[in-house]
Amino acid sequence: MPNAECIECTQSFTGPSADNNVCSACVGCGQCTFVGDGVCVNLTVTENVNSDSAYIQQKAQAAFLGCQAKNITACQALANMCVMETYAYYTSNSACRLYSLFYNQPLSTTYTPISTLNSAWLQNLPWIYINSLGDVNNLADVEILTSTEIPTAFGFKGANTVLDLVVFKYDVNGTFLGEENANTGILQLCPDQVSRKSAAFVFGTSYASSCTLTPTSLQSVSNYPVMFYELNLRYTINNEVRLFPVPVTVTNFRDADGQSAEGSVLVRRFFLVDNLSRSTLTTTTSTQSTPAIRYASSVSISVTLQPVGNGLIHPPHLTITYSDLNIGDNGVPVATTAPVSTKNFEYHSGDCFMSSQISLAVLGSLSVLYSFFETGSWRRRQGLQVIDGTSLFMFIFYTLSNLANVFFIVMFGFSAVTLIFYKGQTTVTHLLPDPFINYLFLLFFAMAFAFKTVQILVMIFMQSSMDIFLVDWERPRVNDAEGKVSIWRTFFIANEWNEIQTCRKLSVPLQLFLVVLFLEVIGFKSLALENPTTAINTVVTSSSDLYIPPYNSILRFAVASLVYLVIAFIQVLYNIAIHERFIHDQIREFIDLCSVSNVSVFILAHNHYGYYIHGRSVHGRADTDMMQMNAMLKKEEENLTSSRGLDPGTEQQTYEIAIPVKFRNQFDKIYQPLELMRNQPAARGGSSPMDSKSSENVRAYSTMRNFLTAFLDHSLRDLDYFIKDKMFLENLMDTEFREPIEAAYFYNDPGNSFTNVLFYGNEFALLLFEVLLFNIIDYSQQNFPLAAILTYICGQVLVFIREFLGQQNLATKTLVDKRFLV
Amino acid sequence: MPNAECIECTQSFTGPSADNNVCSACVGCGQCTFVGDGVCVNLTVTENVNSDSAYIQQKAQAAFLGCQAKNITACQALANMCVMETYAYYTSNSACRLYSLFYNQPLSTTYTPISTLNSAWLQNLPWIYINSLGDVNNLADVEILTSTEIPTAFGFKGANTVLDLVVFKYDVNGTFLGEENANTGILQLCPDQVSRKSAAFVFGTSYASSCTLTPTSLQSVSNYPVMFYELNLRYTINNEVRLFPVPVTVTNFRDADGQSAEGSVLVRRFFLVDNLSRSTLTTTTSTQSTPAIRYASSVSISVTLQPVGNGLIHPPHLTITYSDLNIGDNGVPVATTAPVSTKNFEYHSGDCFMSSQISLAVLGSLSVLYSFFETGSWRRRQGLQVIDGTSLFMFIFYTLSNLANVFFIVMFGFSAVTLIFYKGQTTVTHLLPDPFINYLFLLFFAMAFAFKTVQILVMIFMQSSMDIFLVDWERPRVNDAEGKVSIWRTFFIANEWNEIQTCRKLSVPLQLFLVVLFLEVIGFKSLALENPTTAINTVVTSSSDLYIPPYNSILRFAVASLVYLVIAFIQVLYNIAIHERFIHDQIREFIDLCSVSNVSVFILAHNHYGYYIHGRSVHGRADTDMMQMNAMLKKEEENLTSSRGLDPGTEQQTYEIAIPVKFRNQFDKIYQPLELMRNQPAARGGSSPMDSKSSENVRAYSTMRNFLTAFLDHSLRDLDYFIKDKMFLENLMDTEFREPIEAAYFYNDPGNSFTNVLFYGNEFALLLFEVLLFNIIDYSQQNFPLAAILTYICGQVLVFIREFLGQQNLATKTLVDKRFLV
Repeated sequence: MPNAECIECTQSFTGPSADNNVCSACVGCGQCTFVGDGVCVNLTVTENVNSDSAYIQQKAQAAFLGCQAKNITACQALANMCVMETYAYYTSNSACRLYSLFYNQPLSTTYTPISTLNSAWLQNLPWIYINSLGDVNNLADVEILTSTEIPTAFGFKGANTVLDLVVFKYDVNGTFLGEENANTGILQLCPDQVSRKSAAFVFGTSYASSCTLTPTSLQSVSNYPVMFYELNLRYTINNEVRLFPVPVTVTNFRDADGQSAEGSVLVRRFFLVDNLSRSTLTTTTSTQSTPAIRYASSVSISVTLQPVGNGLIHPPHLTITYSDLNIGDNGVPVATTAPVSTKNFEYHSGDCFMSSQISLAVLGSLSVLYSFFETGSWRRRQGLQVIDGTSLFMFIFYTLSNLANVFFIVMFGFSAVTLIFYKGQTTVTHLLPDPFINYLFLLFFAMAFAFKTVQILVMIFMQSSMDIFLVDWERPRVNDAEGKVSIWRTFFIANEWNEIQTCRKLSVPLQLFLVVLFLEVIGFKSLALENPTTAINTVVTSSSDLYIPPYNSILRFAVASLVYLVIAFIQVLYNIAIHERFIHDQIREFIDLCSVSNVSVFILAHNHYGYYIHGRSVHGRADTDMMQMNAMLKKEEENLTSSRGLDPGTEQQTYEIAIPVKFRNQFDKIYQPLELMRNQPAARGGSSPMDSKSSENVRAYSTMRNFLTAFLDHSLRDLDYFIKDKMFLENLMDTEFREPIEAAYFYNDPGNSFTNVLFYGNEFALLLFEVLLFNIIDYSQQNFPLAAILTYICGQVLVFIREFLGQQNLATKTLVDKRFLV
Repeated sequence: MPNAECIECTQSFTGPSADNNVCSACVGCGQCTFVGDGVCVNLTVTENVNSDSAYIQQKAQAAFLGCQAKNITACQALANMCVMETYAYYTSNSACRLYSLFYNQPLSTTYTPISTLNSAWLQNLPWIYINSLGDVNNLADVEILTSTEIPTAFGFKGANTVLDLVVFKYDVNGTFLGEENANTGILQLCPDQVSRKSAAFVFGTSYASSCTLTPTSLQSVSNYPVMFYELNLRYTINNEVRLFPVPVTVTNFRDADGQSAEGSVLVRRFFLVDNLSRSTLTTTTSTQSTPAIRYASSVSISVTLQPVGNGLIHPPHLTITYSDLNIGDNGVPVATTAPVSTKNFEYHSGDCFMSSQISLAVLGSLSVLYSFFETGSWRRRQGLQVIDGTSLFMFIFYTLSNLANVFFIVMFGFSAVTLIFYKGQTTVTHLLPDPFINYLFLLFFAMAFAFKTVQILVMIFMQSSMDIFLVDWERPRVNDAEGKVSIWRTFFIANEWNEIQTCRKLSVPLQLFLVVLFLEVIGFKSLALENPTTAINTVVTSSSDLYIPPYNSILRFAVASLVYLVIAFIQVLYNIAIHERFIHDQIREFIDLCSVSNVSVFILAHNHYGYYIHGRSVHGRADTDMMQMNAMLKKEEENLTSSRGLDPGTEQQTYEIAIPVKFRNQFDKIYQPLELMRNQPAARGGSSPMDSKSSENVRAYSTMRNFLTAFLDHSLRDLDYFIKDKMFLENLMDTEFREPIEAAYFYNDPGNSFTNVLFYGNEFALLLFEVLLFNIIDYSQQNFPLAAILTYICGQVLVFIREFLGQQNLATKTLVDKRFLV
């Protein structure tokens, strides 16, 4: 009875007045005390309807009585009033409570084929809720959500890529207005192109859309007629097309305690805009003082995969939240706008995170074990006999470094597998990680970054505090009475060493520019969109016809890391295979220069371990004029000289060295004046050798030179050394098995291990730090150019710190004034 | 008579049959030979209607006769048929031709106030075209387009920022359906949010939108009922609201010769979708074989500013192009989609380009004049007496360089003024440049870039071919019989010189990263959008509610150049004011190093002009051991030594030099062996001094050293020099007024002019090159990150070329082996 309609007085109430057009109060009806909607209401049968809405107040009782009189239109109207009241069953005398008097037992939960879901069914009472409104968290409700009845295997490619949702439409009287496919956008209030709207139903695409609508437009009945919907999933079984009723949760539903009972009661019928029932109010309550429009402010569909995982799904589940939009008292719309959001496909994936957890556990344990081993190796190199605090610190340091690597590897592996499986699958078995996994991911991400940062800072500190000494082999000229040897070759080598401190195997700006090029300009970031498309240019060439889903953080991590590492790999490969071989190799040129300038480099990275670059000139001397210099260079080019190696007859110039305790003692004794100076760092480190202790320093320097040249010449009786090759396992594990008790060991080092005290030898650690930094900035801002910029700036800060500290250390240890280290 | 309606037989035709419901052939009508739409048509009055459309074929004659019978509905129907036939006046017996029989003279062109534009008017014949359909390029039509009647001053801020367009709506029978504001999006077929659609009517915003619609949806009469529209601009004059009829051009209109006569006939009424008239066809012609939907595939509104320029406009002008969308024969829609585009506000601006043209002319002439002067200065420095080919080449070179600067300055000024005026104006006086100015802009842009590239390449070539000699002041030790002086200090200086060749006043990667940060991440590029908004975060925080207009190339140039130059300026300022003063100054350190190492640098950039860095040690010698070196450094720090300058008592170490002819002759004579070697470039330039001529070279080197030390010591009788200050004008113009006839002139050079032979002294040219490169890439791709990446890579290539050639030249000229130039 939505509109005033006069029915004849039957049973306990009397009919319309003589004037057939206007309903007046019932005449001659003793029990009749109230006229609602032109129908006499017998208050002994039903009590007064309880509603804020004048519309429902006016219509509900009439509809109830009509329905009682087997008028199916009245039943439909009453059911729709229940829907408009957001299924307020527990409000006494609500439309829902009245309707439940007829509809007090759940319909059959066997799902009827479409052929029978026709007018025959529509003649019955409208099926507006799945089981029972009164029974919160009904077991049958849970059952329908986890039903495995739908036999369709959904996929990202091929036939079943779209959820085939069919909407039944009813007007406010319950008249069936036909069915429509949901992908026409009928359920999406936000106006948009159909091609974009329909993306909401593509399997595997995260769809989210929001907009604001004005009360003026929502008020318009011509734009938004009050319509009621029922959603069904269409599927085919045995060549028979069937419909599965999609359960709906209205989050506004309140249980008997007035609590929100989300997901507890599943219903069938819903509306999107109600500009009818609340346009006039009976009372002004505290919550609702002015007429309002009730509209679906949030609509979302979630689909859960069956654990069996071959594209089978549980029934889709629609969740709706209604909001009231107030209208000004005089009917003039206030400047409020209605935010509307639609979000579809909150997928829930299975447990494919398991393998990552296992790898994390295994690799994590291994890395702790390896850290033990590394600490042992460090203690041997450091010559420590007892376990002290520094050992513990180093153990923690190694553990953090290794854990950072392990975390990165596992995260990278997990995200790359997610990317490949998510984008590559045909039948859906892998969906995007759920929020809990995202949280874990972020946790490990943050830890990996923090640990790697600690590692890099400690590395810089250690590199900037190692002992280095430049050994000048030049003897005073025989006919020079002063016996002075020019210091300039030493200056030259110190200067060059200072320059190679921060050289890298790749160019960081080029790396970052190329990464941004591939991700942003060429468009690889499109792979991180939450849809199954594998096109890389979605974002770049996006037209307005195309829906662009949001990005997934884990996919962004995967794509960014992959691009970063591949470009870095290519850069390093080019550098090693082409650039260093044919164009410019700073490390080789430095070693070459040492030999030409007759200066060796003696590095003690640890107490009993270090590196040696043999730079003794094959001509015996280098401090000469241009003519002789050119002659010497020519002679060497023509192979008329002996070989450059420390071991006669070899060309090997670089060694790892392990030195015995007595060598170290001697070394420390000579170095003592310098050590003292180091402990009182001056503001201008470079000029501190100028102070009163300066001559003492220079004498120590001279003694050290004599000591080292004598040692390297095998001239010390009780301190000798042997040149060995490292065993394969020693090389692999970066350790030494022999303990240098009596003599030092010089291990041939064709791989130039001495670059370990430079950035050059720590490329992997620096690269991982930069990848993590890049990704963590992107994680927080979803902006690759910003990540590149900040990574570059942080990298430059590290380079500046390393150069500053390294120059300071070099000036202190080699006594070369800072002005020669430019 | 749109639908079959039986009218009584009056005049020359007879009425309906006895059965009142079905119209049959007229009975008893002697002249009646044809029944159209239930109406008997007298073919002696009108001939058979000529139309492809069965609908029009069927209805037009009946409507014509109805209209003849003063039935206004019939007139409306006939008028609408004319509109549906896209005003096909010149097709004989078309609906338009029939309608023109009634409507054969133009309506008054005085524009009626809204009060009179009411039902009284609607009772008259529908006003579907402005003046006359038959009269192509009617003068009255031109008059209405250039009317100055609208008194509203439009602006970007304040009251009149939106065109207030009112749409009159009619159904197919001509029934007036009311008016609607155009900003509800009624004229835009593409579905979109109203907030985005309404951007089309915001003054100064370039709006363009396109989408594809399917025939299925266009076919649906419920989605797209056939509606006819008339557009009016609402304005207020003397507190009276008036409507100005917006003239419409239908580009499908064909004149008497069957030619498209765009803009020639202005009409009033139009439709957007016609899924009625062409749904059944009478004949299948070559152009139209299957039923079709006719729809407005392109709709655009253009507004022209009045030349008076204070926000006043000529009437808006709507242009529509219709397309036919075929439907498959069986009524099954084929897979065609209908592209629809809407473009509004093609503004036409005035002539504010004039001032730029003037500046271009003035500055261009000045730059040619200055190039003359520069060439003169170059010839003096080069010692040229006659005008030869190289002088001409250098004149062209200087002209190109200066024109590149002028072009950039004018372009930058023009674009910046456009940006500021366009974005900053309240009343509209400046609109965006038209296509012709855009074309000119691109032309000058390309020329500036090409000229600047030539300049940079020539600069690199010249820098890589100048003469440089390192003068070692060291004398052999008194008690050294061999008399050899160690070459290592020379190596050191050569090495450092090699390193400072490409140092810059700003960091290029940092520059590019910051530019991308500001433009892309912070969002300054929003300023280049074709709308009056001055928010810088439009693009970054864009929600789907907001319409994003396209970018304007000139505004992009302005914003990008502004950001680039401001960041570069800040970087250079920081570098000069802070970094070089407190942290690290490569140029000062190099000069310092020269002094400490007792080596001077003698540079001849031209034949008779060059630079000199005085590096004579204040201690008389530098080739000593560490102890003495430290002592000497300490002594100098404590000011116990003489001053460093060439002129005793001064600290000035850097000079510009102008040398006389005889000096140059002497220099060339000594250098001859080296010149010869230079003319036979070896594959490995560095090792060529090793060949058989090597000793000769070294002898020449030694002679040169002796010659230069003697000259600098004033020891040559006939070759002396004077130390002078440059006059202000000389400094300003970068030239010398004195001719070095007898003696050389050494000009004190506190500004370190010698950096002119390095990248360091050409920062401005390099910066402009990079700005132009950045902008030209962005111009072609509209992508700032891509521009940054390519600019970086090009910059690195230039650096590589400069370093390679510079190293080659340095090795050749100073005889220092390349392996010392690392």
